[in-house]
This record gives sequence, C-alpha cells and structure tokens, in this order.
Amino acid sequence: MVLEYKNIDKAPSFRKLQALNRRPDLHSVLSETRIRSLSLPAGGGLFYNYSAKLVDEEILVLLEKLGEEQQAVEKYRALIDGEVMNTGEKRMVLHHRTRGQLGNSVLRDGRDIGKFYDEQKERFFAFAEKVHTGTLTGSTGKKFDSAVQVGIGGSDLGPRALYLALAGYAAQAGKHRMQARFISNVDPDDAGQVLADINFETTLFILVSKSGTTQETLTNMEFVIQLMKQSGIAGLDPKEHMIAVTSETSPLASSPDYLDSFYIDDFIGGRYSSTSAVGGVVLSLAFGPELFQQLLNGAHEADKLALEKRPGKNAALADALIGVYERNILGCPLTAVLPYSQALHRFPAHLQQLDMESNGKQVNRFGEPVSYGTGPAVFGEPGTNGQHSFYQLLHQGTDIIPLQFVGFTESQAGFDLSIDGSTSQKKLNANLAAQVAAFALGKKDNNPNKNFQGNRPSSLLHGEKLTPRSLGALLAHFENKVMFQGLLWNINSFDQEGVQLGKVLTKQILGGGDTDPILTAYMDLLS
Amino acid sequence: MVLEYKNIDKAPSFRKLQALNRRPDLHSVLSETRIRSLSLPAGGGLFYNYSAKLVDEEILVLLEKLGEEQQAVEKYRALIDGEVMNTGEKRMVLHHRTRGQLGNSVLRDGRDIGKFYDEQKERFFAFAEKVHTGTLTGSTGKKFDSAVQVGIGGSDLGPRALYLALAGYAAQAGKHRMQARFISNVDPDDAGQVLADINFETTLFILVSKSGTTQETLTNMEFVIQLMKQSGIAGLDPKEHMIAVTSETSPLASSPDYLDSFYIDDFIGGRYSSTSAVGGVVLSLAFGPELFQQLLNGAHEADKLALEKRPGKNAALADALIGVYERNILGCPLTAVLPYSQALHRFPAHLQQLDMESNGKQVNRFGEPVSYGTGPAVFGEPGTNGQHSFYQLLHQGTDIIPLQFVGFTESQAGFDLSIDGSTSQKKLNANLAAQVAAFALGKKDNNPNKNFQGNRPSSLLHGEKLTPRSLGALLAHFENKVMFQGLLWNINSFDQEGVQLGKVLTKQILGGGDTDPILTAYMDLLS
Repeated sequence: MVLEYKNIDKAPSFRKLQALNRRPDLHSVLSETRIRSLSLPAGGGLFYNYSAKLVDEEILVLLEKLGEEQQAVEKYRALIDGEVMNTGEKRMVLHHRTRGQLGNSVLRDGRDIGKFYDEQKERFFAFAEKVHTGTLTGSTGKKFDSAVQVGIGGSDLGPRALYLALAGYAAQAGKHRMQARFISNVDPDDAGQVLADINFETTLFILVSKSGTTQETLTNMEFVIQLMKQSGIAGLDPKEHMIAVTSETSPLASSPDYLDSFYIDDFIGGRYSSTSAVGGVVLSLAFGPELFQQLLNGAHEADKLALEKRPGKNAALADALIGVYERNILGCPLTAVLPYSQALHRFPAHLQQLDMESNGKQVNRFGEPVSYGTGPAVFGEPGTNGQHSFYQLLHQGTDIIPLQFVGFTESQAGFDLSIDGSTSQKKLNANLAAQVAAFALGKKDNNPNKNFQGNRPSSLLHGEKLTPRSLGALLAHFENKVMFQGLLWNINSFDQEGVQLGKVLTKQILGGGDTDPILTAYMDLLS
Repeated sequence: MVLEYKNIDKAPSFRKLQALNRRPDLHSVLSETRIRSLSLPAGGGLFYNYSAKLVDEEILVLLEKLGEEQQAVEKYRALIDGEVMNTGEKRMVLHHRTRGQLGNSVLRDGRDIGKFYDEQKERFFAFAEKVHTGTLTGSTGKKFDSAVQVGIGGSDLGPRALYLALAGYAAQAGKHRMQARFISNVDPDDAGQVLADINFETTLFILVSKSGTTQETLTNMEFVIQLMKQSGIAGLDPKEHMIAVTSETSPLASSPDYLDSFYIDDFIGGRYSSTSAVGGVVLSLAFGPELFQQLLNGAHEADKLALEKRPGKNAALADALIGVYERNILGCPLTAVLPYSQALHRFPAHLQQLDMESNGKQVNRFGEPVSYGTGPAVFGEPGTNGQHSFYQLLHQGTDIIPLQFVGFTESQAGFDLSIDGSTSQKKLNANLAAQVAAFALGKKDNNPNKNFQGNRPSSLLHGEKLTPRSLGALLAHFENKVMFQGLLWNINSFDQEGVQLGKVLTKQILGGGDTDPILTAYMDLLS
C-alpha cells in the first residue's frame, strides 16, 4: 500500500465530522448495554471502556473512516518496519522492538536492531543477577542494596513512575530486591536531599543520558562523585559504583569511569525509552529480570493489538480517534488522566511528557505550519485525592475537560480491612464508578449552584490488578495512542525542537561572554 | 462605601479591553528598563515581575480601572471584616485571621474569632513543645519521632506541600524535629505503604477533618487503629497516639479516643486552611513553633500588601487582573506554575486545588449562570525537570498557555558544588532566565520546525531564598490572587458544590440498596 501523508483537515471524514455539528446526549444514550458493549481489550488484561464518551454510531463510523483515510495502522506498520518516521531528525522509531519481535527485521550497518536491544536486555539481566547474588559488590566489599538513577526527562519520569507503580506489588510478591531513588533536577537541593539518605558503600548509581551530554545529568553525576570522594570512607571508589545507560557513540560509552555500560540508540526517543535499558536497568535491579520481562510482555501484547485494522478491535486507535474528535471537533485543549490507584501517583507526570512533548507541535511532518489544534495539555492526580481537589472545576467549570479514568478490581498489596461494611478497595471503586456516572449524567437541581449538567466525557481503562504485565500494557496503550494521534494529525511525534532554544540561551548565560541584555537583566533578578 | 456585586462583563473597562483587540509585541516592548520597572513587592522578600506578560500601559490602566469598578480591594476588606462572602453556605471567610490581626474584630457568639484562632495556635505550639521535650511520650514510654497526618484535599495537599518545601531548610537549620508522613487516598495501598515503614511506638497520628465525617479520612484512621491493635506490641494504646484537628461541633471534638483536639471552624475553607491548625499542628511538630510562626508572618505580610488600593502596589491584585485578562480577553483556559526549586515539587498540586476548586464555577455569587470563562485549569512541575518534559508544547504547541515561574537566588540547603565553571544553583537560574526570555522573544528560523514565535507570556515570582517567611508569602500571594479573581468574576470562591454529587452516588453504591442500573454496570466493570 502506498502511504500518503496529508494533513487531517484534508480527510473527507474530518470535514464530515466538522459539518455534523451535534453531540449525542449521554442522558438518552447511556445504558447498561452501551456500558457492556463499548469496551475493547487493551492488552495485559486491560479493557478500554468508552461508553461515557460523547460518541454515537454515526460519529464512530466517521472516526473509523478517518483512521482509514489517514492510514493510521498502515503507518504504524511502516514505523515498525523501519520507515524513517522521525522526519526532522531523519531517524527510525523502534521502541516497540524493545519488548518483542514485531514486523520485519530492521538492520543498521548489517546488524538486526531488535537483536541488539535483546542483547542489551540479556546483558543488564545478567548484571542484575550478579548484583542480587552478591557476585558483584561495592568497592568496600558490601552488597549493593540500593540504586540511584541519575537522569532527567525521559530518563527519569517513565522509569520513576514505573518503579513507584510496582514497588508495592514487588514487596507483596517478596521480589523487592533493591530500593531505587532518582536524581533529576539540576537544583542542588534535589541531589542533596537524595544523597543525605544514601549509604555510598551499598549504592549503585546509574547515569542515564542517550547523548552523554545532558547538562543536568552530567552535573549531578559529578556532584555524586565529589560527595563520594569527600565522604572519607576508606577504600570507596566511585568507579566501582557507577554504570551508564547511553548510546554506543556517546562520550560515556565504554568509559573507564564506569563499571559497565548498557546501550540504546537514536531510534528510541527518551519519552519512549522506559522499556529499553533506560528503564530496564533500574527496574531489573529493583525487582529482578522476571518482573521486568512481564512488563515487557504486557507492553508487547498492547503493541500487537495496535496492529488491528479496525478501531473496534484496536483500543489505542479508538482512544486516539476519540481524543482527536474531542480536540478538533469539540474543541477541548486539555485532558486529565485520573488513576484510581495510589501506586500510579506519578504516572500522569510521565504521560504529561509522553503526550505533550510528542504532539505539542505546530508544524506537520514536512515542517509546514498546521491550521488545527494538535496535542492537548495533560495533567492528573490519583483518585480519590483529586475528588477533594480539582474535580470541582471538572464538574462545574465553564470548560469541558475530557477525562481518562484508570481503575483495578483488586488493590496491589492485597492487604485491606472492612470498615463500615466495605473494604477500602470497594470504597475506592465505588467512588470511581460514581464519578464516571456523575460526569456523564450529572444531576438536575433547581438551584443552579447545585446543578450538574452532565455530558462531560470520560473513558475508563480497567483491569483485575496493577501487575507488571498490566502496567506494561497501560504504558504501551498510551504510547500507541499518542503515536496514532501524531499520525492522524500528520505531525512528527518523535522530535522535540521546542526544547532547544532554552538550552542555547542557558549556555550563553553560563558561557559568561557578551550576553544579550535581556538575559542579563533576568539573571540579575535572580542574583 | 457601598459594595455592588455585578458580573465582570458589566464593567465598562472589561468591554473596553474586549474592544481593544490587540496584543503588545514583546519583541518591541521588552527592555532592561521594563524588566526592572514591572516589578512589585509581594511580601516576605518576594517580588512579582510581570515584564514578560502581554500587557502595556493602556491595558494596565484599563485593568486597574477594572479592579476599581469591581471593587476588588474593598470587597477583600469587607471579607476580612466579616462580611458573609461564602454566599452559598452563608459563611464568613476568615483564614487571613490565622496569621495575624487584620481589620476589625469579628465576633461569633460574643467571641473574637481572631483570638480563637490564636488560642488554638498557642495550644498546638504548647503541645509541640511537650512532644519535643519528651514531656509527652507514646503509650510505651518512647519519645515521638514522627507524625502521620491523615486527611484529604485541603487537609493534605497544602500541609504536605509546605512540609516538603521546608524539610531541607529545617534540616539545614538544625530544626527538623520530627519526620512527617501523609495518608490521604482511600486506596488501601496508600495507608499500607506509609504504615509499612512506621514504628507505631514513636508515631503520633493527626486526624484532620473539619466536619469529622470525611469518608476517606475516617476509613484511614480506622485502618491505622486496627493495624496498631494487630501489631501485638505490649502496652500500645492507639488513644495515646492520636490527636484530631476538627471543628468544635464535629463528632470528633473532645472524643475520648484522642489525646487532644485542636479546632478550626466553618470560616476557614479546607483549601485555605494551611495556616490554621490543619497545617499548623503537623508543621509545628515537624519544625517547631518558631518556624511555623515565621511562615505565618510571611503570609501576613502578603495579606497586608493585598490591601493596597492600586495594583501598582498590590502584587496579588496585579497578578489576578493579568490572569483575568489572559483568561477572558486572550482566551487561555489553562495556566502552568513552574517553580525552579525542587523543594516546591508538590506546591503546584496544592495550587491546583486552591485555584480550580475555588474558581471552577459556572454560576455567580447569586447562583446565576455566568457567560464568561472563570477559573483556569492549573498544572505544573518543577524546573528544570519540566523543560525535559512538557515545555515542548509550551514553546511550540498550537495553544498559548500563560506561565508563572518561581525562583530563588540561593538554594535551600546551601550545599553546592562548582562544576564546569558554575554551581548547580547558577545553572538552575540560568535555565530559568533563559526560559523567561525564550518564551517572550522566541527565535526566528527559516525552518518552521525550529522557529519560536515568542510572545508566550510569563511572570516571575522571585526572592532570595525559600524560607518559612518567603514560603508563607508565596502561599498567601496565590490565595489572595485566587480570591481577587473570584471577586472580579463575581463568583463565590469559597464553596464547592461540584464535589457533592460524587459523594452522594458513592454512598448509594456502598449502601447496597436498590442502585441505579448505570452505577451498577460501572461497578460491575470493576468487580
């Protein structure tokens, strides 16, 4: 099939959707049957339920056509097979390969890239085993009991969110092998606070920077090294406490300053790197290779589902299409992600990067300005906490904000108590079910201050339990949703030119030469 | 002066602003002089700099008139003096009194309310002293070394954000007396994870619920009690490890199940309660009464500044007016708060509640629907982390999102290293200055993908250092900004009817009687 890349407003179905100019009323369409039927498997035991979205049969048919006209699934297949999808940087996009074989082999300099990722995985699995068995110890002979990841952005948010999401599960399963901490911000108080609690002798530091040139990360690693040297611990050698995750061509690769290095390459973008060595090293150290492999398996399931041609079988595509409908037809510039699971408390921060950095673009893949809204802003906090915070605006504010709920039948640790006739987990889920219904149907009241209009759309991703497998599927579902939206909008979801200018100006200031007077004036305010 | 409450679109200046229909171009107006002159003291040593906002002399004059026409400062004065500003619930709004005497005495049943708050403060200060000196110990005779706050929403987000903001400062000053932890979510994994690390014998639990009926909080407290009972520690008596912060009329007041109770009342809304006993008890236990008093002093300074009639001397009012301009004239439904201080990493979550729960309203103070946008959605993460995450969309997305930066000359802990010619703190601030300039001025590039249009507005709240005093001022600045915006929009910023429906439906589900089939169907998905 010949792929044709065109802006979404050139697609006939998009124009039909614009012309349609009406919304279904959830008060009249929402029913038990609809709730049971508008549900799709999303991999890893998860289901995507979109019964409370503002769609009906006619809209769904047009959205399916829109996906076909924009060749969303065909382009995903091309991406997997090594088409240069990161057009700006002229790179392939191969993060799906980190979790399993999908599509044809893709070669670089005669080397199968999927195999390369697998080799790296086997290497860090073996490394984790050596650490866990005590074959490899710190420089003073003590067993490593904690890991500190030093990285920022994609080298921080995803791995951190996944670590926090699985810590309780692993503890319950007796598989929490090492504590993990994270240093990201160049603010010295970040490194200072993490290192105040650290025993250097039993800690392994993981420097994560694909380019090997990230200012914050190199600064923080030097910070760690200097503090280790100042610690006065006899025999402590920083080199024996440090490993790197980087690309083979970076200045850090095979550096004698590191115990070992694990590699990624340019075909894995930072925000898509959680399932590569970027997330894999720290998660394998923390929870063991087995749990990390389960996470990969869950992600791979979701990746395979995303190849289904019809949105009626492809949850990530359906989610993407409905999101585009909300963004461009309903005109909503914002989305909230609301996990009813405390373990996912930093997952929205990861999705914020994933979505906003991928699709916060004003040009199409050819570099031409687009005339429609692209990626929405994303925020979120766990329920029930959010209910006592910003839900007031979600229910009764003057703008409609589409919602993505996430929930699980069982709690993670499994420990619970029945109080006032119900467990905490049941209370949690009763709150979640109540919110979905409240946003959809609202409640009439003669007092306008107590009136809830309803018709505020939400979806629900749900499963039995937050396990490594379901978490992997959840992660990949969102990655694939964001990818599909980028393909629908005809933008490049894999570069980030918008972060460059700040870096350049920062260097100007720190370079200390003749600086722009505006920069100097702002710097003066902070001096 | 007679106060007249009218919708903002009835104000002549608002219509003039709408008619103006042009934006200043920061490329032509931004100068060193503008940067130095568009700056206002905000209390506690802070300054509010709005040089990079899309305003000019003509707009600022109209905004000042708008503030006068809406009688913003006069209404603030009336609020302080006890006018019933929470019209829906028919309550006064008196949180300013928790940090100092302001305006006339306000009586309830012949009792001076300011004095009542002061008495409570003296009581919890004395209680903290008894704990710190070891006069009061746990039931097995051990000194308390940690506190766990059990609360949700306003009883959690503000106190937690302030605790995290001051932990490093207090440690550095040798005044970190007790660790504090927080349990909020009804998810059993939240309480489970916090309690897994707790030594019951040395822990004091603080139950915080104004009404004494909050489902999550009562459930979690019962969770704690049952776990204490199951711990098998000889002599451990839950009653001697629990205090309450509640209202005098709540079922918890003077309960024999608690060691002591500290009181607030209906005139302090949850999201405005951080400076009352709700935040005061845990912060005084953690850092001592002296540091908490400094925080109150900083907030009081900001409260006094907010009484200045002209926005040219009143930072909170200026911030509020510019925000209204961005919301209603520029049409921006979203704001990001970006603190360049890792210690403030949960401060945006508090502001999210403060702003979105206060002003996410669709009716005016009389209960009539409004025809203009009210409170924006708020999100944020610390810089420089956010730069490697969602800043792509802020710089190059298709929508403009106004920004509020926060920064400090010095780091909090004071420990820093010079690496590559600059300290981490200098790098942090160089990044901040670079971002303000980059958003304002952008950078032309012939490649549209590398082009930055600029004219993306931001403000900068800055000070010497994040101390208890400057933190108190920062907190009060935002509280007062949100209050002024509510007064300008003619809405009631102090109720939250939008959270009620979810509570009612949750009770229906948990009640187990005949439930709505829609609720049952969603509950089935999660069962």
